[in-house]
Amino acid sequence: MSPTITSPLTGDRIAALRAETPGCAYVTHFNHAGSSLPPRRVLDTVIDHLRLEAEFGGYEAADAAHDRLEAVYGSIARLLNANPAEIGLVENATRGWDMAVYAIPFQPGDRVLTTMSEYGSNVIALLQIARRGVTVEVIPNDETGQVSVDALERMLDGRVRAVFVSHMPTNGGLVQPADAVGAVLRDHPALYVLDACQTAGQMPLDVDAIGCDVLSATSRKYLRGPRGVGFVYVRGEVIPTLVPPLLDNQAATWSAAGAYTIRDDARRFENWESYVAGRLGLGAAVDYAWEIGLEAVWDRVQRQAAMLRARLDALPDVTVRDLGAVRGGIVTFTHERVPADAIKERLAAKKINVSTSSVMSTRFDMEARGLPTLTRASVHYLTTDDEIDALATEVACLP
Amino acid sequence: MSPTITSPLTGDRIAALRAETPGCAYVTHFNHAGSSLPPRRVLDTVIDHLRLEAEFGGYEAADAAHDRLEAVYGSIARLLNANPAEIGLVENATRGWDMAVYAIPFQPGDRVLTTMSEYGSNVIALLQIARRGVTVEVIPNDETGQVSVDALERMLDGRVRAVFVSHMPTNGGLVQPADAVGAVLRDHPALYVLDACQTAGQMPLDVDAIGCDVLSATSRKYLRGPRGVGFVYVRGEVIPTLVPPLLDNQAATWSAAGAYTIRDDARRFENWESYVAGRLGLGAAVDYAWEIGLEAVWDRVQRQAAMLRARLDALPDVTVRDLGAVRGGIVTFTHERVPADAIKERLAAKKINVSTSSVMSTRFDMEARGLPTLTRASVHYLTTDDEIDALATEVACLP
Repeated sequence: MSPTITSPLTGDRIAALRAETPGCAYVTHFNHAGSSLPPRRVLDTVIDHLRLEAEFGGYEAADAAHDRLEAVYGSIARLLNANPAEIGLVENATRGWDMAVYAIPFQPGDRVLTTMSEYGSNVIALLQIARRGVTVEVIPNDETGQVSVDALERMLDGRVRAVFVSHMPTNGGLVQPADAVGAVLRDHPALYVLDACQTAGQMPLDVDAIGCDVLSATSRKYLRGPRGVGFVYVRGEVIPTLVPPLLDNQAATWSAAGAYTIRDDARRFENWESYVAGRLGLGAAVDYAWEIGLEAVWDRVQRQAAMLRARLDALPDVTVRDLGAVRGGIVTFTHERVPADAIKERLAAKKINVSTSSVMSTRFDMEARGLPTLTRASVHYLTTDDEIDALATEVACLP
Repeated sequence: MSPTITSPLTGDRIAALRAETPGCAYVTHFNHAGSSLPPRRVLDTVIDHLRLEAEFGGYEAADAAHDRLEAVYGSIARLLNANPAEIGLVENATRGWDMAVYAIPFQPGDRVLTTMSEYGSNVIALLQIARRGVTVEVIPNDETGQVSVDALERMLDGRVRAVFVSHMPTNGGLVQPADAVGAVLRDHPALYVLDACQTAGQMPLDVDAIGCDVLSATSRKYLRGPRGVGFVYVRGEVIPTLVPPLLDNQAATWSAAGAYTIRDDARRFENWESYVAGRLGLGAAVDYAWEIGLEAVWDRVQRQAAMLRARLDALPDVTVRDLGAVRGGIVTFTHERVPADAIKERLAAKKINVSTSSVMSTRFDMEARGLPTLTRASVHYLTTDDEIDALATEVACLP
């Protein structure tokens, strides 16, 4: 399905989108990669459902919202060019990733490959899985700092059971060449697991073009949805091969005293009780992003991030630490004298929100580059030139 | 810690508590065992935090609420007579139960024991665990319909690795003799796992008096908190023996390139990203229940449920299907001619909320008793005599 035709995100359009965002009146937000500012429509969707639950009962409200809840699967499927039956709604991206990855029937002797910039939670899970006799190997970067597709190709053999890529690492600015990885894996039986936590809502995603078998993402980041909800995509033909590590009466049916039947679709990765209002909010956020148009969003995010990098690069005490041939909305930097936590605190006093990224999040990369904790300033399409100016000015004035 | 001294729940007090409950103006709610009606304080706590997130950013709002978020652990610990380090906050009761139960280091040849009325989701999980060579055995009921503690004692041997009890089954009205089960298990190495999904908020719970090693519960039922959040208690000395089935950077620290360290406390059963507003709402709900007093709540719930059972029992076409020596707020019944789903639908048209309970929820019990889907009408302390009258009158008028 092709994206809707949308207008480019020019000044007037941005002003209108900011006017729909309550947080724009309060803060200069450079933490969209942590948790973005939701549009009013998303906030209202969540609150309206919470009120409905309070007034009519939680289950009764869910029954009343049944069709809208079902539509959330369709909205996410459209976003990814997937089928609604390939989508599971989960607590967050990590749990979505977990429910699919721990479900892979690894055998002793299997190899799994991941990148230098894989996210800490994913690596911890892989290291736990490694105790089953699986070897975790890290694919080196190419000269641009993104994963080397050539190296990946050379590392592939019949023992490689799965390949794990964080599409846009939590630090480092880069967008991994997900399509090129997919092209290499197309004729290989290894599962391709893409953590799209930072790219969902930031750029167009097409699971067929990418060729991934599993894709996990969250609501609260670039999709601008509520916290506490996420989703996982699993390719239709892969679903039956993955037995979820935890089962309940959503994932399976207790079919006879000593037997159960696991669902056929990706809801086998779900569990029964959930933050229903948050799911509706996620649906509203996905539809909002779709209406704006992911091509336009991606274009604007890249431009604003490039502007921020240029401004920071021009400061004598600042070093931008971003990598890769293609760079997205996450901008990371160090300051010659001021540590990241102090920068975050100082900017917070001016109502400028940034975050930090430590070795715990991306140890392979941070150790290889010998980096301390980074300051992370993440832009979205909402980010204005004036905001970039305000941030750069404050960073320039650090002691 | 002993409960605070509270006033009994008489008519005036109930009227005041109902006035604090938005839903009491809209519906006659007999689905507290499904999802109760939250007090305004809980709803406001959730919505206020969602607004804070929208205005200042999701992470920034969580930082601002840090102390209140920490206090949620203390509130739950007080409710259970536990230590805050023994509490993990999770998506729901089932996931809390899962994270502890799938973490038990089962060995082939182990036996696990459960009750006739164990909840479907738990049984499905045990049947999955059984594939590791573990035998799942069902303890028979005694003559009152509750689990036979004598039979449990006879079934115990050195191979029994864990005993699973749903404290108050989702159907059937009974409260299992949790203390007596705990007394039998006190000198046995088997882990005692209590699913307190329906009893948390309905009756006093003291993990030391009960003697359980794991207790899971949810926010949305008798605690009257938000949907999409729950908790798990794991006894301090048991925590280090349980390796969570899924690990992330909340449960563990990525301590070196190829190594991780799992947390010491019960937050090893958590994961990083959550519905923060819901957690705060759960804390508000727990504090609210504590202020009312669980002894008073339990006394009132039992009285109202007994009144409803008596009214239904007096109807010629109705059979109450509840079991057990001690009965709580869940009342289940069948009608000679009208199936449960039709009763639910008919009552819904009168804004009376009830639910149904099918064989999928408690197959061992429902099959043994040869029961069809039951109508479930669950009372809380909020339930008035007039509401009971309204429900009984409608049921009496069924065609």
